[in-house]
Amino acid sequence: MAEDRTEISSLGEFGLIDHLTKNIEHKNASTVLGVGDDAAVIDHFGKQTVITTDLLIENIHFDLIYTPLKHLGYKSVIVNISDIYAMNATPTQITISLGISNRFSLEALDEFYDGVYAACDKYGIDLVGGDTSSSQKGFIISITAIGEVSPDKFVQRSTAQKGDLLCCSGDLGAAYLGLIFLEREKKIFLESPDVKPDLEGEEYVIGRLLKPEARKDIVEFFESSDITPTSMMDISDGLSSEILHICNQSKIGCVIYEDKIPINEETRNAAFKFELDPTACALSGGEDYELLFTVSQKDYDKLVLNEQVSVIGYMTEPEKGKKIITKGGSEYDITAQGWNAFTIK
Amino acid sequence: MAEDRTEISSLGEFGLIDHLTKNIEHKNASTVLGVGDDAAVIDHFGKQTVITTDLLIENIHFDLIYTPLKHLGYKSVIVNISDIYAMNATPTQITISLGISNRFSLEALDEFYDGVYAACDKYGIDLVGGDTSSSQKGFIISITAIGEVSPDKFVQRSTAQKGDLLCCSGDLGAAYLGLIFLEREKKIFLESPDVKPDLEGEEYVIGRLLKPEARKDIVEFFESSDITPTSMMDISDGLSSEILHICNQSKIGCVIYEDKIPINEETRNAAFKFELDPTACALSGGEDYELLFTVSQKDYDKLVLNEQVSVIGYMTEPEKGKKIITKGGSEYDITAQGWNAFTIK
Repeated sequence: MAEDRTEISSLGEFGLIDHLTKNIEHKNASTVLGVGDDAAVIDHFGKQTVITTDLLIENIHFDLIYTPLKHLGYKSVIVNISDIYAMNATPTQITISLGISNRFSLEALDEFYDGVYAACDKYGIDLVGGDTSSSQKGFIISITAIGEVSPDKFVQRSTAQKGDLLCCSGDLGAAYLGLIFLEREKKIFLESPDVKPDLEGEEYVIGRLLKPEARKDIVEFFESSDITPTSMMDISDGLSSEILHICNQSKIGCVIYEDKIPINEETRNAAFKFELDPTACALSGGEDYELLFTVSQKDYDKLVLNEQVSVIGYMTEPEKGKKIITKGGSEYDITAQGWNAFTIK
Repeated sequence: MAEDRTEISSLGEFGLIDHLTKNIEHKNASTVLGVGDDAAVIDHFGKQTVITTDLLIENIHFDLIYTPLKHLGYKSVIVNISDIYAMNATPTQITISLGISNRFSLEALDEFYDGVYAACDKYGIDLVGGDTSSSQKGFIISITAIGEVSPDKFVQRSTAQKGDLLCCSGDLGAAYLGLIFLEREKKIFLESPDVKPDLEGEEYVIGRLLKPEARKDIVEFFESSDITPTSMMDISDGLSSEILHICNQSKIGCVIYEDKIPINEETRNAAFKFELDPTACALSGGEDYELLFTVSQKDYDKLVLNEQVSVIGYMTEPEKGKKIITKGGSEYDITAQGWNAFTIK
């Protein structure tokens, strides 16, 4: 944290907005008019516009005890643009509204915006608008992300077909274990403030929680490989919940294989340390921000060239339900909580 | 208030979204894909996209003691689309994110959404997305409004020219007096809960506060009369503050005439009752959601045909400053607080 403390109120609303946005340089031709008027103007020049929004509330979605403000700013952008990529689209702009309690200094807010701008730079996004307000309690972040996609090239959740391969990007379950770890350290800290947290060996899972990335590379891979997923969404609430969304909205079933679910070695080790099942963490833990998608079988040869993609199962007739085959060969129903071990088939 | 109480938690997040959005029928061809996926898809078919966002926080922006939830839902939409009209654009979609504390029942939320949908119906807007979350304290509303405008027909704040006429729509100051009145009634109510509020004669100012409208008609009038304002913004923070925005962003001065500022008779009466100067209420009171704009003098003949438009002054060279000529013929500097009576020129 910076040592200086400047009260936000000393700048006034317009002074604050000017301070936070004065260095913006637009990166996208689609940004016709940015911050500073009643509204921003965007021209996607024949492409379609994709819009998503998320509300993040202190102590509901994040805990400032173990979340650095710069990371929070970065992540706030990532969770939104992840939804844009999940439409097979490219994010181009964001707006950001903040509710700020008076315990925040200008220096703290600058740290948050450092993270916002770092994400904007990395992903080629322009900040084009927003709103700042005081809040009576807690830090409130509302971000709207705007993207573009060639006409009708967007990919929905509801269009998976029987026989399609079910795939995901990256690896799963790490962010959940990062959360478990930091919640434990918070408890220790609150009981004994002098004990230094021991992050040894947990860098990966903590990093996945505090500084996630969005899968721009996967959407670019689809483009360069001429693959159009038949359905797609991002994995924010845990793999099993998202699989059920795709199955239910597409009105079909699926089979996935436990041993195909990608789990990083460090995630696995962290799970064992907490006496948790790594597969359960991947199925039910949230905030991975990987992509879950289905592709036609004809795209298999192209798909396997990308090490960041795992084929975890395939889509079936609706009557067959949504199933997971465990490493031991047992078949279970997938439920939103992972799977229900009490209803063995 | 409805007598039944259904806990929001009894529906779950997806059940709640489904409950709140199940009756949506899209009104705009530009709405390609609405609620139910990672993001909405919009195609303005060659027009430019206009985006604005506002964050409304309980006890900062509204007080539920005297704000019916249906009115709040309606107003939340209006304050956002007012910014779209202020760009000379047409609103087409909104997204709405809510943070809800557990004191809210499903029935209360339904009342709020009744107001949201009433505004959407009246203004021809589609609700295409959003986010719902619990909040630890208070009701949090974040709305993003999306509109369309023919390429480069949007109107900025920074483009007023010397000699242009300075105009506003409707009448000013009423919402501020509505607020003063309801704050007084709230105080009386908290001291003596049995005393019924006496709204006699205050319907106009209260209505302007609780159920404002956006000036769709003015933007349509510009279109049908072939007028393009040289600059425009909406009046949400009081006339004087907005005039200073247009002057400063356009780098010019202005003169306005106190006797040309449109103030409704009921607003005037309410002001006198509270021993306030009606002009000061118009200059410094907020939340009128009228439009402030400049037009070329050549458009004067067309402009005066619209009774809802008042010409209040004209734009001058920057060196002449920003002035108000009072009814008594004195000239003062316009300040963000109205005008400063201690610096008589």
